[in-house]
Amino acid sequence: MQDLDENTVTDAALAQMAGTSDPRLKQIMDAAVRHLHAFVRDVELTPAEWLTGIQFLTAIGQACTPIRQEFILLSDVLGVSAVVNALHDRKARELGTQSSLLGPFYREGAPDLQLGDCIVQNPSVEPIVIYGRITDNAGNPLPNALLQVWQTNEHGLYDLQATQGDSMDMRANFRTDAQGRYFFRTVRPLGYSIPMDGPVGDLVQRQNRHGFRPSHIHFLIGAPGYRELVTALYFSDDAHIDSDTVFGVSGSLVVNAKDDPDSPIQGLRAVRYDFRLARAVVDEAGRVGADPSRLMPAAE
Amino acid sequence: MQDLDENTVTDAALAQMAGTSDPRLKQIMDAAVRHLHAFVRDVELTPAEWLTGIQFLTAIGQACTPIRQEFILLSDVLGVSAVVNALHDRKARELGTQSSLLGPFYREGAPDLQLGDCIVQNPSVEPIVIYGRITDNAGNPLPNALLQVWQTNEHGLYDLQATQGDSMDMRANFRTDAQGRYFFRTVRPLGYSIPMDGPVGDLVQRQNRHGFRPSHIHFLIGAPGYRELVTALYFSDDAHIDSDTVFGVSGSLVVNAKDDPDSPIQGLRAVRYDFRLARAVVDEAGRVGADPSRLMPAAE
Repeated sequence: MQDLDENTVTDAALAQMAGTSDPRLKQIMDAAVRHLHAFVRDVELTPAEWLTGIQFLTAIGQACTPIRQEFILLSDVLGVSAVVNALHDRKARELGTQSSLLGPFYREGAPDLQLGDCIVQNPSVEPIVIYGRITDNAGNPLPNALLQVWQTNEHGLYDLQATQGDSMDMRANFRTDAQGRYFFRTVRPLGYSIPMDGPVGDLVQRQNRHGFRPSHIHFLIGAPGYRELVTALYFSDDAHIDSDTVFGVSGSLVVNAKDDPDSPIQGLRAVRYDFRLARAVVDEAGRVGADPSRLMPAAE
Repeated sequence: MQDLDENTVTDAALAQMAGTSDPRLKQIMDAAVRHLHAFVRDVELTPAEWLTGIQFLTAIGQACTPIRQEFILLSDVLGVSAVVNALHDRKARELGTQSSLLGPFYREGAPDLQLGDCIVQNPSVEPIVIYGRITDNAGNPLPNALLQVWQTNEHGLYDLQATQGDSMDMRANFRTDAQGRYFFRTVRPLGYSIPMDGPVGDLVQRQNRHGFRPSHIHFLIGAPGYRELVTALYFSDDAHIDSDTVFGVSGSLVVNAKDDPDSPIQGLRAVRYDFRLARAVVDEAGRVGADPSRLMPAAE
């Protein structure tokens, strides 16, 4: 009978998990156990604090619905999602546009619109134009690339928050033309507070953080043979551009809307941004990059 | 505009959390962020793996019900609960009986029985006797101490698993007599597999672990001025006594039932165990030990 103490239980746990068939699962869970145990030892977590943590995680899981993903929000506000994205960019075979957070509001099945269409059904402010090209790393255009875009409206709300139902708005799918160009109309989105009415919002408030994300537009861009790009463009004049509560802003992703004689739609302020896709890396299992469908948040 | 990479985002997250009012919350969340980020960097977690993790945690939260606590189960099978308990024991001012896991099946409001009563309503096998004394560290008896006991039946099921409703069985509360003695009848519980029909069971199966806990009886023991004791007694002849899937067994907690001329109830095999309570440590906030009510799992 081996008596386990707060240090030896770690090896005992690793020993019980040693028979894991999938080597990657084994590697991930071994590291998870080592870090979890080290965390508990570092802070000398008490039983009462442990139970508070159990209740916190349980409340987060139970706050998740088909239209709300509170665990992604937790990952975002703790900077975990940003670390995952930065590692993803670093591992690319060649440099593309930087990644940014997927966030919890991506949805599959957005309407397929024509280049030039407006993605907002009833804008109450003057639209702006977003345009540019999707190219490879060398600047060669990628025709027929799929650009998925989603954003808040001029009041800082996503469609799922602005309406009671699940109708789609402020989101669309486009295909680039033969020259790799895309262009569409939308409204300048408003920055917003992350949802503060759940357990993650409670934590952020106890941390005395403002909880705001600067104004931004999300993009998920794919083309065969290239790494899927999950990113966002951020508007430079937002008050929270330097203090994004989920650490998503990079300098290379900051834009502003202005009069632009090159814009394909004149009479409206425009943002030009060219996205570069890195070639896909084929992994040992023969998988080419990430499968876009796997980025879809769980709808429990 | 500071561009964050997979290392600098950690300091950025700590900086955003620096204004946390509660110093203990700050300490815990700082360590959580450091270890979470280090874990992601160590295994170079991909976006697809990150999403798998999000979905795993979400499924665990959604598997929790008023009568099932899947996050406690996760903590248990990863050895985290055992680390918390070992730290708790080490921090005691004086040595008491060793702790063991609370587990997810504790319930408040069990029936108050009289010493000698049987805690099983309809036993199908011959009962055994559990008896002994509850004392302080020096062996002085603690009269009127509260002993809460819960266990599986002879088929390895807790009351919540054996019946559809929420009626109580195989659990009771006792008070020690003037000499600090307790004694009651029960059945020898059967060891059992942790619940394998949820996300934690899926993980344990992928780890090729047997998933069994050896036969045991849970105790939660309290007396004013003493540290609350959460522990369990384990039966030595169980096949899984050396491979408990949640790392709860300590040599000092292993017992067996035998003929015993000192047992207060003759004609039945008996287990004698004396529990020693350590004096409560008064913390900086003036709190005496742990509050028993805080060990109650969340009933969402």
